[in-house]
Amino acid sequence: MDIDIIKVAARSRTTAVAGAIAAVIRQAGYVEVQAIGASAVNQAVKAVAIARKYLTDDSIDIICIPEFSEVKIKDETRTAIKLIIEPRYPEDYSSEESW
Amino acid sequence: MDIDIIKVAARSRTTAVAGAIAAVIRQAGYVEVQAIGASAVNQAVKAVAIARKYLTDDSIDIICIPEFSEVKIKDETRTAIKLIIEPRYPEDYSSEESW
Repeated sequence: MDIDIIKVAARSRTTAVAGAIAAVIRQAGYVEVQAIGASAVNQAVKAVAIARKYLTDDSIDIICIPEFSEVKIKDETRTAIKLIIEPRYPEDYSSEESW
Repeated sequence: MDIDIIKVAARSRTTAVAGAIAAVIRQAGYVEVQAIGASAVNQAVKAVAIARKYLTDDSIDIICIPEFSEVKIKDETRTAIKLIIEPRYPEDYSSEESW
């Protein structure tokens, strides 16, 4: 799997996004979720809350770091919200991948 | 100051909310931000991103844990998003308050 940014839209299904977040965290221990606009940001945040539940079974406690991010869409610069998702204590986390 | 939950509305100013988050984190090392509806959640997430910038001057690296939360408003139960805000490494953090 080669996902580093999950782009969330207003119509994205939260459980589908949550599944993707959980899968990438399990494999790589890091993922970024990007959303533009209030509805998309809302879906993204809900997806992270759901992904947290999915990952408790794996004893992975994820946290989220929100940042502003400039994104170019059709030559227009828009401000996106980027949610950086990581295990709370990355040093305790052993990824399947070599770093 | 005695704030444990900051309630964010769709019309809340992000910088004002960010200032409140930063102030409570500096004093108590923990705060919850509650938002109902996409616009309010969006404002809350942006406020956390801004509060992160404010707190870098204090060398405090905050993280955010989103959860669903049931809230009763006028006898109606609504689903809110609760953002738990904490320093990334609470054990490294010495609060002004006694715990």
